[in-house]
Amino acid sequence: VSDGGLLEPGVHRAHGVADDAALVSAMLQVEVAWMRALADGGAASADHLDAVVRAVHGWQPTLDRTEIEDAGNPVLPLVRALRERVDDPDAARLLHAGLTSQDVLDSALMLLAQDATARLLVDLGRTAETLARLADEHRGSMMAGRTLTQYAVPTTFGLKAAQWLVAVLDAADHLEVVRRSLPVQCGGAAGTLSRAADLVADPGAAAAALADGLGLAWPGMPWHTRRAPVTRIGDAVVEILDALGVVAADLVTLGRPEVGEVREGPAPGRGGSSTMPHKQNPVLVTLVHAAALQAPQLGAQLHLCAGQAVDERPPGAWHAEWPALRRLLRLSVATTAQAAELVAGLRVDTEVMARRAHEAADQLLAERGADGTGDPAAYLGATDAFIDAALARFHGGTDGA
Amino acid sequence: VSDGGLLEPGVHRAHGVADDAALVSAMLQVEVAWMRALADGGAASADHLDAVVRAVHGWQPTLDRTEIEDAGNPVLPLVRALRERVDDPDAARLLHAGLTSQDVLDSALMLLAQDATARLLVDLGRTAETLARLADEHRGSMMAGRTLTQYAVPTTFGLKAAQWLVAVLDAADHLEVVRRSLPVQCGGAAGTLSRAADLVADPGAAAAALADGLGLAWPGMPWHTRRAPVTRIGDAVVEILDALGVVAADLVTLGRPEVGEVREGPAPGRGGSSTMPHKQNPVLVTLVHAAALQAPQLGAQLHLCAGQAVDERPPGAWHAEWPALRRLLRLSVATTAQAAELVAGLRVDTEVMARRAHEAADQLLAERGADGTGDPAAYLGATDAFIDAALARFHGGTDGA
Amino acid sequence: VSDGGLLEPGVHRAHGVADDAALVSAMLQVEVAWMRALADGGAASADHLDAVVRAVHGWQPTLDRTEIEDAGNPVLPLVRALRERVDDPDAARLLHAGLTSQDVLDSALMLLAQDATARLLVDLGRTAETLARLADEHRGSMMAGRTLTQYAVPTTFGLKAAQWLVAVLDAADHLEVVRRSLPVQCGGAAGTLSRAADLVADPGAAAAALADGLGLAWPGMPWHTRRAPVTRIGDAVVEILDALGVVAADLVTLGRPEVGEVREGPAPGRGGSSTMPHKQNPVLVTLVHAAALQAPQLGAQLHLCAGQAVDERPPGAWHAEWPALRRLLRLSVATTAQAAELVAGLRVDTEVMARRAHEAADQLLAERGADGTGDPAAYLGATDAFIDAALARFHGGTDGA
Amino acid sequence: VSDGGLLEPGVHRAHGVADDAALVSAMLQVEVAWMRALADGGAASADHLDAVVRAVHGWQPTLDRTEIEDAGNPVLPLVRALRERVDDPDAARLLHAGLTSQDVLDSALMLLAQDATARLLVDLGRTAETLARLADEHRGSMMAGRTLTQYAVPTTFGLKAAQWLVAVLDAADHLEVVRRSLPVQCGGAAGTLSRAADLVADPGAAAAALADGLGLAWPGMPWHTRRAPVTRIGDAVVEILDALGVVAADLVTLGRPEVGEVREGPAPGRGGSSTMPHKQNPVLVTLVHAAALQAPQLGAQLHLCAGQAVDERPPGAWHAEWPALRRLLRLSVATTAQAAELVAGLRVDTEVMARRAHEAADQLLAERGADGTGDPAAYLGATDAFIDAALARFHGGTDGA
Repeated sequence: VSDGGLLEPGVHRAHGVADDAALVSAMLQVEVAWMRALADGGAASADHLDAVVRAVHGWQPTLDRTEIEDAGNPVLPLVRALRERVDDPDAARLLHAGLTSQDVLDSALMLLAQDATARLLVDLGRTAETLARLADEHRGSMMAGRTLTQYAVPTTFGLKAAQWLVAVLDAADHLEVVRRSLPVQCGGAAGTLSRAADLVADPGAAAAALADGLGLAWPGMPWHTRRAPVTRIGDAVVEILDALGVVAADLVTLGRPEVGEVREGPAPGRGGSSTMPHKQNPVLVTLVHAAALQAPQLGAQLHLCAGQAVDERPPGAWHAEWPALRRLLRLSVATTAQAAELVAGLRVDTEVMARRAHEAADQLLAERGADGTGDPAAYLGATDAFIDAALARFHGGTDGA
Repeated sequence: VSDGGLLEPGVHRAHGVADDAALVSAMLQVEVAWMRALADGGAASADHLDAVVRAVHGWQPTLDRTEIEDAGNPVLPLVRALRERVDDPDAARLLHAGLTSQDVLDSALMLLAQDATARLLVDLGRTAETLARLADEHRGSMMAGRTLTQYAVPTTFGLKAAQWLVAVLDAADHLEVVRRSLPVQCGGAAGTLSRAADLVADPGAAAAALADGLGLAWPGMPWHTRRAPVTRIGDAVVEILDALGVVAADLVTLGRPEVGEVREGPAPGRGGSSTMPHKQNPVLVTLVHAAALQAPQLGAQLHLCAGQAVDERPPGAWHAEWPALRRLLRLSVATTAQAAELVAGLRVDTEVMARRAHEAADQLLAERGADGTGDPAAYLGATDAFIDAALARFHGGTDGA
Repeated sequence: VSDGGLLEPGVHRAHGVADDAALVSAMLQVEVAWMRALADGGAASADHLDAVVRAVHGWQPTLDRTEIEDAGNPVLPLVRALRERVDDPDAARLLHAGLTSQDVLDSALMLLAQDATARLLVDLGRTAETLARLADEHRGSMMAGRTLTQYAVPTTFGLKAAQWLVAVLDAADHLEVVRRSLPVQCGGAAGTLSRAADLVADPGAAAAALADGLGLAWPGMPWHTRRAPVTRIGDAVVEILDALGVVAADLVTLGRPEVGEVREGPAPGRGGSSTMPHKQNPVLVTLVHAAALQAPQLGAQLHLCAGQAVDERPPGAWHAEWPALRRLLRLSVATTAQAAELVAGLRVDTEVMARRAHEAADQLLAERGADGTGDPAAYLGATDAFIDAALARFHGGTDGA
Repeated sequence: VSDGGLLEPGVHRAHGVADDAALVSAMLQVEVAWMRALADGGAASADHLDAVVRAVHGWQPTLDRTEIEDAGNPVLPLVRALRERVDDPDAARLLHAGLTSQDVLDSALMLLAQDATARLLVDLGRTAETLARLADEHRGSMMAGRTLTQYAVPTTFGLKAAQWLVAVLDAADHLEVVRRSLPVQCGGAAGTLSRAADLVADPGAAAAALADGLGLAWPGMPWHTRRAPVTRIGDAVVEILDALGVVAADLVTLGRPEVGEVREGPAPGRGGSSTMPHKQNPVLVTLVHAAALQAPQLGAQLHLCAGQAVDERPPGAWHAEWPALRRLLRLSVATTAQAAELVAGLRVDTEVMARRAHEAADQLLAERGADGTGDPAAYLGATDAFIDAALARFHGGTDGA
């Protein structure tokens, strides 16, 4: 066991996301789809394709770790093992013909991203729904506004939820844009499709067929050294964790016993201490907060590699992308699931909010000056209008990105 | 002198970008535009507005550093000094009324970003034009394709230029999207526009008027703690430096004397050594490469802050954004100007390229197998088609973002 | 399978380093050592200790992922499961008494670091030995010195190896210093050893006994929120990868076919291409280079958490350390093993070096001016003296840290 | 004005640290010291040295920004301008002879680091003194211990101060170690001292003399591509900001109005709001917290460059170090000064602490179980012993690094 799950609490929520089995399966999908593209282009027969489909069917190979290192990536060992399974020698020869390792691995990673982003969108949707409900329900739940840690003017918990909501909607819209253009990689040895051009009349058409077969986009050229498809996934995912991180950071404060305005809901068996029987630790808050502290470095890793993608395919800058991208996908899927559960279970104590706002009324109304009425609830400005704007955005699905 | 210019060669190319004078000017623009919005809303008279406009006209204040620290930001000292200059006491009182420091500083930073991104787009456009020319001119300039540092299959310099081109176009499109929605900040003390609502009937309309006056967008709500507007600038700018970084990284290799295929052009007085008279160092290549090594950390800084934007306005996470954003704007403007000059001056040695490709023909054609013709120029696959696709993208201006 | 090995080529070289099984084993070691400390302090009997030792013996628990998330860390589920296995109810009650989760996990992570750093030092030692040999053997192997990618003055490969050597020695010395003071964590619920003080007369002595039992240091106080022990491991490990990264970056250049001065040695089955039969990719160079691109962000992650370690134990900043520390340990152990093999197998082509130096003699001697003899070998300055200094450092083992 | 001071509140506290004037002065010091070393070695006469000393005396050159970019660094323009000022042509020729730009700039940066670290140590010393006083004075100031944001067991403010203290002492010790070995750079064009060896009999002795003249260490070899001297400064400085960051993060919580246990002291004119008259924002807390959010990325930048220091002197990886190092020095000096003032002015409200601990006694004593006395002050465990250990460390000055 070397999988690190013990040090990533909640990562089981990302079960199947970008793990080794999913990667192998995605790489095999790419090889089969390419064989189909070759068949479409007349380079392979239906029998060749069948032979490869048969060989892949139900196959769950275990790749040798030494071979992966010797190849520098998992594609070569996989292709080699698959060729041995294909019972038609011509089909075995045609398998992978015209592709390079990076075509297979990049495309497979895009498939993993497609899966992960679908899951992210579902959980962001659940979170948005909850937040929209909270924004509406609590439009009258007055609380102290806090700036630079001190009391400022009154606000409402509804507006806070509305702000969280719009951040989630913006991040989801951003992800949706990225998701729609996840590209297939297809360039052959050095991005010229030279070998494919020997096999089929129109290698660009074969690349487009590969994309179609996988549900990805063909951007018209390979992108072996243009890594924006990777960094844009990273940026969008980090933006999600930024948005959820703010929710968690707010709850770190609002759930302190001295504040006690909004707390993580209890769950059986959750949040206990190894030593203190009374403890009810805000576990989901902690884990979401921790994720927001980790995401920026992972996103930076992707950009760093993108700026060093030298030659026709780079030595190292490509390899250094993989663990960061994989980790970002798994971390974000797990965290987004945690966040959806967290907001759904929040305990909002409107009485504490109101009592505090009244006790702090002098400070909360100081801005208004001497003619203040003394009732913080009469000094809520545009809170309702802002909540309405956020809810309209949520219901209309208009893109504010 | 503490401005660090000595350690940022070429930063003078970003003259006026996000420097202190530009920031002061932008903050004053915000205050005047807000005064106009108050006048539009009936809270101030034309005379009040005039008094403020007069006071601002031609004024170039020097702010006291201790006062900036005491306030935690430069807005309060600026407002205080400006109030003293306004000769109408009522106007002085109304100045800044309803805004908070963050409204002014965030909006001013968006104005600085507007200026910087305009300059970026101009220089990216110049770079794209050059690269499109190179891609077309060199579609027949065969060279060795290199992967993992070793010879792979033949390619052309035209395709390399086309790849650089598409990366630049993608980055420019991305920036354009971000630029179009740079938002005004307008929320008052704690994001409720409470004070503004006491002054005007429709504070949202005042915020929209502020946006109009500044050429920014009003997103319908303040974003004191939703920092995607800031991180998206960062992500787009880092993507630009990723794209230019690849150009530089390629030139680091191609311009080595042992390779000698593409070199930075000479410029009088440039690239000399303090000790070796013959030296012609690739200075612009070096500086663009250096910029690509710096951008990811700066982008990560913005995301890190975004995930910690607690309360109604955060203690620290906001402040830690500023130097990174400022540096990213200045670095990218200077680097993009350097890159435009760099690509315009490239010395492409097609003879060296061809000679090397022929000498390495055995390796470059190994993929093709025994029936290779021996002429690498006959194994260029889809290079032309890819160049056409890139040029169509350039001429059509279609958005691949 | 979710362990990511497919995307971390060579990580099997870090087998057993900081993986889940090693972590469980280390946590159990901590619990047993604490039970022994309690027994030493008179709080537990020899029978109690025996009962715990028996329960742990040969036990390889699988912890439930949901329970880990519910607890926020793996300690509570482990303690709970272990308590069930201890057949003496009093011993079960005493187990873990006085500790908090963080005591166990931090101490266990230090044990993992102790193991990983031991392995790092062995492989750094092997690397240093090879480099010392290369420095000595090649003190006469003249080659072109290159600065800013262009020919500068002559140097020798011996000096290059000597520079690599000193970087490795410095990094190893730094690691050794850190390794010698890896601390035990022992503070109880909130860093006061309150419960331990109810159990034993001198809780500080119990902490010291715990440290003794584990081969760690007791720094006199817990460090729940002072994370320098963690960041110092990170800094030292990143420094190692910096040093090895330079070796790899140099080999990226020197091993290009156009340069051909030093190449990664061949190994059966290594470096092949999925499509090009002739390819001999520099795989170890690529992977070491990739590691150097990843380490800085991982080290930054640790520092970022260290600066946010709020309260008596923080919500999130602690949790966000774990995956980065684990990854850094595994990455560095695998990379250091790769680097040791890489330098041992280097193919140094002194003829190519000499030929190039002579061909470039005009440039390499330009600094010397008109009275240059024309023989680059006569312009090697202090190269020999510097090699001697490096070798003296290697043989003397003097600490330059 | 482009110096960014408006966006770095408090940076005036780092006046003269690593600014352009200080850099020019340091570079001139290096040139003079090298001239002296040449004179010592017999390559220059006393008259030559005098001519250079005269030319430098009182000179405050303004370097042309275009020339800096053309050279890629500020050394060449400075040497050129200085040569014009030296009235003895032989002296002018000898000036800088045998050095390369990197020798001058790296050595100058070490001088700037020497100055900055001296200032850091002074302010860390002031902070430590205050914290030692607070630890001792407040050893009886019971307060609630908080873990994962919730009440845990009782602790004292004295222990909290003691933990802050030890972190500061550790960081200061670490910095002291780094400071003692700040090295001179001296390698000539490509790290061989080839030209120097033509000028003096023993170029290593000249390098050592240069070091002596500057108060730096000569490590026996140049370190153009071994950047541990730079990363170690970075790591030590980041560790300082980690330590101070924890103080600030604690104060973010403890100074909230709902907690009110420890607050930043008031200062005339500090912490006001641009809109709310009552506001007393914790400005220094905010700025120190912001610094801790920025330091890790800056430190990572240095490591990233260190791992890419290719060839005999690298194209870009060196240049990308400078702004990060400069910023880290200035940020840390300003922040350390702010922190010293912050801790000196803290308002500790022991009554609030005690009242809260008593109110929360049930929870704070839950760990102790049913036989708890109900008085949290009776459950303080080893707090006093830990405070004593910290104070002994402070008074003894023993190195816990």
